Amino acid sequence: MSLRFAVPHARKLLIAHLLASLTAAGLAQAAPVAAKAAPLKSKQTMADLIKASSATDWRPLNPDNTLYMELEKGRVVIELAPDFAPNHAQNIKALVREGYFDGLAIVRSQENYVAQWADPDEKREIKTAKRKLDGEFTVKYASSLPFTRLPDVDGFAPQVGHANGFPAGRDPKAGTAWLTHCYASVGVARGTESNSGDGTSLYVVTGHAPRQLDRNITVVGRVMQGMELLTTLPRGKGNLGFYEKAEERTPIKSIKIAADVPEAERSKLEIIRTDTATFKSIVEAQRNRGGDWYKVPAGYIDLCNVPVPVRAQK
Amino acid sequence: MSLRFAVPHARKLLIAHLLASLTAAGLAQAAPVAAKAAPLKSKQTMADLIKASSATDWRPLNPDNTLYMELEKGRVVIELAPDFAPNHAQNIKALVREGYFDGLAIVRSQENYVAQWADPDEKREIKTAKRKLDGEFTVKYASSLPFTRLPDVDGFAPQVGHANGFPAGRDPKAGTAWLTHCYASVGVARGTESNSGDGTSLYVVTGHAPRQLDRNITVVGRVMQGMELLTTLPRGKGNLGFYEKAEERTPIKSIKIAADVPEAERSKLEIIRTDTATFKSIVEAQRNRGGDWYKVPAGYIDLCNVPVPVRAQK
Repeated sequence: MSLRFAVPHARKLLIAHLLASLTAAGLAQAAPVAAKAAPLKSKQTMADLIKASSATDWRPLNPDNTLYMELEKGRVVIELAPDFAPNHAQNIKALVREGYFDGLAIVRSQENYVAQWADPDEKREIKTAKRKLDGEFTVKYASSLPFTRLPDVDGFAPQVGHANGFPAGRDPKAGTAWLTHCYASVGVARGTESNSGDGTSLYVVTGHAPRQLDRNITVVGRVMQGMELLTTLPRGKGNLGFYEKAEERTPIKSIKIAADVPEAERSKLEIIRTDTATFKSIVEAQRNRGGDWYKVPAGYIDLCNVPVPVRAQK
Repeated sequence: MSLRFAVPHARKLLIAHLLASLTAAGLAQAAPVAAKAAPLKSKQTMADLIKASSATDWRPLNPDNTLYMELEKGRVVIELAPDFAPNHAQNIKALVREGYFDGLAIVRSQENYVAQWADPDEKREIKTAKRKLDGEFTVKYASSLPFTRLPDVDGFAPQVGHANGFPAGRDPKAGTAWLTHCYASVGVARGTESNSGDGTSLYVVTGHAPRQLDRNITVVGRVMQGMELLTTLPRGKGNLGFYEKAEERTPIKSIKIAADVPEAERSKLEIIRTDTATFKSIVEAQRNRGGDWYKVPAGYIDLCNVPVPVRAQK
């Protein structure tokens, strides 16, 4: 398969060139010849912009807010967003520090929806963390919360954009903001009552963004590396994709906070700073593609399609 | 994990209730008590509407336009949409009938994007099918093309909706329509030239809808069953998620047209008819959730989040 475009190494980049290798020989089909649209201008791609970026366009993940979920097949790196869910972030860290998650399991993998982890036996004691928390479905946002607004309309929120790397919605009239349910968003599973989610069971969005969940459940962070460890899990055959048999559940060896892990064992990652000109250019490069493969630029991008590149620290 | 909502059997249904089983004991966190919004009204869910639907709300997949891709682990069922890509649908059927795909392989699995199949050795001869086709990125639509419009705004297309079960966009001024790149959409891989896709390599969208591809590439149909056989494939380590080693590629035993398969071996599936009151009610049930789990109805739905239920024929 001939590949005609270099691909940057950052995993989170979406490259939209689909190539097929074809011989030039063969009969052209007799068909009306459509008027050819003018080719799109060549312009900097996201890969070009990343290559040209400066060190200050990136920030390291915050080790105090970064979780490492260790699975047999590798590590899932999650960064928490205390700006949006301070109490849940705090409680999850408390649960992590008391070893709550160690030895638990992935209990659910539902096609085009979520993977979820929890105590499958529902019997593990909580020692110091809280068992009940009021939902943090939205937060009142301070004017100091950095928010880089997307230029485009969004049907689920009055405004959308990025805050410190996290995709978010905002309602200026209500003064509230919330993290949106994009691919890789991590949320706090709950029952019917708004205060029934405490962080003992978390889920991650693995398919098309289920934005109808926004403002209905606490979103607490984002998977920054290791998504494929979760998206490729066999689907559970029970209701809602829950696994029915213990042997189907992928064990969680441990979850640790990066700051508690010896520095040599940390995943040294950095994420683009979404309040930079580089990021705005990346958004625009994705909104309006140039070059010779695309024929029609979209002139629009939806929040959950905006790539927020993560890479190994330079 | 206690499950409090019955789940219908159709695989394509998205259920948005995430449950965690918690004991009622435990300390409530001291926190300001937010004013409680009025609970949402109880209303018919999609599951209720499906249960209440009549036989005429469903249509069987068309065996002349349905492909069975047989993998070791099971069958992927694809329905082609000749209304939107008549020449490509015809050419793909010709390729299938000459056994072009038999023994080929899945060559690519890219995280949050696509799986793609093709001849990994790029050497298989085409016998009767065409090797070059003008792109069918959009079609002029006849007024007879059934189109059930979604009430909501879409940033990628002047109008969106469903035509005969397929998610589609439409430009009334230009008189053109196209299938959109939603999860499960199947398209025709191409090189740089618009006429370089002939159907010898196809891809399916496995992650968040890459709508920027709309109108840039021929979309030819949709996977109706078996998506998890493709979405759980290990990701290719090469550029764009291509596999680098032959042993990584999932072999395709065969692709056949349903009409050519003995009736006893066919997958008897039916899909909701998208020009029915039942479907419109399903869309509305998803746009504005009711019941006791949701707290805030979205009042909006994006095209690629609209479920188009498929089930075993009754």
